[in-house]
Amino acid sequence: MIRKKITSRASNYSQWYLDIVETAQLAQNSVVRECMTICPNGYAIWENIHDILDKKIKNTGHQNLYFPIFIPKSLLSKESQHVKGFAKECAVVTHYRLVENESGNGVMVNKNAKLEDELIIRPTSETIMYETFKNWVSSFRDLPLLFNQWNNVVRWEKRTRPFIRTSEFLWQEGHTAHITELEAQGEIFKMLEIYKELIEQVLAIPVVTGTKSESEKFAGAKSTYTLEALMQDGKALQSGTLHNLGQNFSKAFDIKFTNKQGKLDYVWQTSWVVSTRLIGALIMTHGDDKGLVLPPHIAPIQIIIIPIYKEENKNEVLDYCNKLTYLMGVSDLRVECDVREHESPGSKFNRWEQRGIPIRIEIGMSEIERKQVSINRRDTGEKSFENMENIVQTIKILLEDVQTNLFNQASTRLHENTSEVINYSEFKNTFLTKKGFVKAFWCEDLKCEEMIKKETKATTRCLPIDSKKLIGKCIYCGYQCVHKWIFAQSY
Amino acid sequence: MIRKKITSRASNYSQWYLDIVETAQLAQNSVVRECMTICPNGYAIWENIHDILDKKIKNTGHQNLYFPIFIPKSLLSKESQHVKGFAKECAVVTHYRLVENESGNGVMVNKNAKLEDELIIRPTSETIMYETFKNWVSSFRDLPLLFNQWNNVVRWEKRTRPFIRTSEFLWQEGHTAHITELEAQGEIFKMLEIYKELIEQVLAIPVVTGTKSESEKFAGAKSTYTLEALMQDGKALQSGTLHNLGQNFSKAFDIKFTNKQGKLDYVWQTSWVVSTRLIGALIMTHGDDKGLVLPPHIAPIQIIIIPIYKEENKNEVLDYCNKLTYLMGVSDLRVECDVREHESPGSKFNRWEQRGIPIRIEIGMSEIERKQVSINRRDTGEKSFENMENIVQTIKILLEDVQTNLFNQASTRLHENTSEVINYSEFKNTFLTKKGFVKAFWCEDLKCEEMIKKETKATTRCLPIDSKKLIGKCIYCGYQCVHKWIFAQSY
Repeated sequence: MIRKKITSRASNYSQWYLDIVETAQLAQNSVVRECMTICPNGYAIWENIHDILDKKIKNTGHQNLYFPIFIPKSLLSKESQHVKGFAKECAVVTHYRLVENESGNGVMVNKNAKLEDELIIRPTSETIMYETFKNWVSSFRDLPLLFNQWNNVVRWEKRTRPFIRTSEFLWQEGHTAHITELEAQGEIFKMLEIYKELIEQVLAIPVVTGTKSESEKFAGAKSTYTLEALMQDGKALQSGTLHNLGQNFSKAFDIKFTNKQGKLDYVWQTSWVVSTRLIGALIMTHGDDKGLVLPPHIAPIQIIIIPIYKEENKNEVLDYCNKLTYLMGVSDLRVECDVREHESPGSKFNRWEQRGIPIRIEIGMSEIERKQVSINRRDTGEKSFENMENIVQTIKILLEDVQTNLFNQASTRLHENTSEVINYSEFKNTFLTKKGFVKAFWCEDLKCEEMIKKETKATTRCLPIDSKKLIGKCIYCGYQCVHKWIFAQSY
Repeated sequence: MIRKKITSRASNYSQWYLDIVETAQLAQNSVVRECMTICPNGYAIWENIHDILDKKIKNTGHQNLYFPIFIPKSLLSKESQHVKGFAKECAVVTHYRLVENESGNGVMVNKNAKLEDELIIRPTSETIMYETFKNWVSSFRDLPLLFNQWNNVVRWEKRTRPFIRTSEFLWQEGHTAHITELEAQGEIFKMLEIYKELIEQVLAIPVVTGTKSESEKFAGAKSTYTLEALMQDGKALQSGTLHNLGQNFSKAFDIKFTNKQGKLDYVWQTSWVVSTRLIGALIMTHGDDKGLVLPPHIAPIQIIIIPIYKEENKNEVLDYCNKLTYLMGVSDLRVECDVREHESPGSKFNRWEQRGIPIRIEIGMSEIERKQVSINRRDTGEKSFENMENIVQTIKILLEDVQTNLFNQASTRLHENTSEVINYSEFKNTFLTKKGFVKAFWCEDLKCEEMIKKETKATTRCLPIDSKKLIGKCIYCGYQCVHKWIFAQSY
């Protein structure tokens, strides 16, 4: 079932991506065209993201919980900006019963089992959660609320792309409520830092953090923060999102508390999400023309051992491989030995290369005799021989080196593909050629943003967190302004 | 927000259950009447079940994956028995877009955005998975398929009960495909053993395992295996289910492979599930009139420390408590110290008792001076003083003792409430009085089973795995038969 040929990135990046998803067996189109099936190799990556991030979320005092998948249509309309942003491409449940059809060979919807208030499958859970939060808060002593939920959400999409855009996807959504605006803002910065740690240190994807423009922010938020990554084709991918919701929702949903002075006040809220989209970011940051490349910190399998033997030394080689597998396994390395008999070593090399395993170890009689192992790095393709003595330590150091190298490589690419431009023709030209992140003065007027998007397909990605106030002229209208924004074409 | 009064089990068991769910803050009714919100205390129990069971599932070679939540209506009809069992109370998605309503203050379904083939929200995933499995299998080398999925499912319910019966619930569903019938049967027994370990050793709930009758088995299965627990009110609760699907689905979904002899054959399949229902079983097995009682192996918090101080020794006591909390935490005990200032010790005792924490430790100046801690067991209410020296070891032994005691207590109740009856009047009488499990000969005729249910509300729970062939007379019709079945009223 493995497709041997991967389209090169240079010839067709978009097809290359689909080929990686297929050959590394990460996901597949499903029977329901708008949704994907996440295969074991892809799901194991998501489980690692879950486990690592979940620990960080809990260590910072948040608790997990679970709200229903259904949102009554009427609830969605409570926050007036939110409904405009989300009550569009939603899956709507209108009926709750099927009956056998007349011919008896299938089923049809029972017209009589119609819901009075249709139910929306959550595109995000603010409304269903906050309708309940109001019952959980009465005094400042009940605050902060620090909650998180791992679940599936649905936003109907006609043009899909595995991990990047599908109607159903998996994510985590954090939702918090605080006594003061300052505390809510502190929560945003804390979680932004945690997302940055996850994406940069675990996934080895460098990001630029910043705030979204008015037109790009979350429907109902006071401000939206983003972590923007740069893919190999020069397009941006939003990898995490955080919202300072101010009191917009607490006023709409009546979430009030008595403060220390005995007065009623509305809570200050935040919400923040990362999703299975991160797997798309991984593929498009590290993958090469041979297949997927996984950073060791996230790789479900870090080391694959391939035994190479003839019939007369089969037992000896397999025995040796099994011992090494055991030794590494008990040393907290994620290792597997490919003992399948009906596949040649060469075909196994190809299989595990396509799947992006960071280190391949080959063991045959010559390695055993020399008390060595033969090692291949997936990231650089370098081959070396290492002594069996201290092999676990050697491999651990090597894995860290692969991790660092992948991050540095992506980081260099991000810097090399970030341009500062001072006039619009240079701006346009950049998006006709190498693309990437483009820093430019923008007056923050919606009309300029719209025209730029229309003419270059580039959108404002963010105003970087650390950006200073300067004086310059808007790249589009020439009006004096104070901030350089980052523009890019994006996924 | 804590409701102080819990209805006693003797006066109203059903209300007692709801009171426990509320006072221990495990779950709440949600805005969508048919669904529940799982609160942090309840969700933490589910996460522990997930983590423990997931490890066992992976250690036996299964991989996790994720299939879409949507099943096209037409797919559900492929297996003729399955569709009869499941295509009933389903949530049906008919539209994929909302628009603003005419008055502009809400949203309505866009009539034009209607799906051609309506989508069912999965009540279970056999059909959507097996439609894909056929593409994953071509040779015996591709087998076995050993997959598992953690997800949400929906079966529309009008009469709900938190954890026991709600429209949406969380579960895991394992799905496997094998070369031979024998291998599939082996998989069933392996997973039955793993479920039994989880339910008996971790949740401390004794179960009887066995096969379901024809009328009670899964729609589309060749045979269904069950783990039946007995609640305190004498009613049975099915706590886990496994299906030997034979070749029913593989024939309907055309999942074929070339066997070692080069001939085409259909795969042999199994599926198996446990759900958030287990939390209901926990409550109704161990809870008492004071609140929830959690077995230590599953308790998210095993030990709660309550500092007892006056203003003048506050720092000293809190310091001591914090050190003890740290010491236990690094020794892999799940411990918390309740330092909230606005609640009295007595009120804290009540709170944590209601939440079922296995061990409460009180520390005041007198304990500090005597180098002791004061310990309260939630299961027996016993109070003791233990020396600080070796306190971690003392607590670990005590937790094991609580775990064993809870299992033994439930086990004794199960045995005391299992009757063998030889005539129908005795049978009926048992269900009018103490209920429980009733062993009786049954001829396996559907009509007797139906009449018994109608007259006593008792159903066949299972034919126990270890039951021997005997000769006796059907409790209902008197016809000669060979098996004693277990009957009970059930949730």
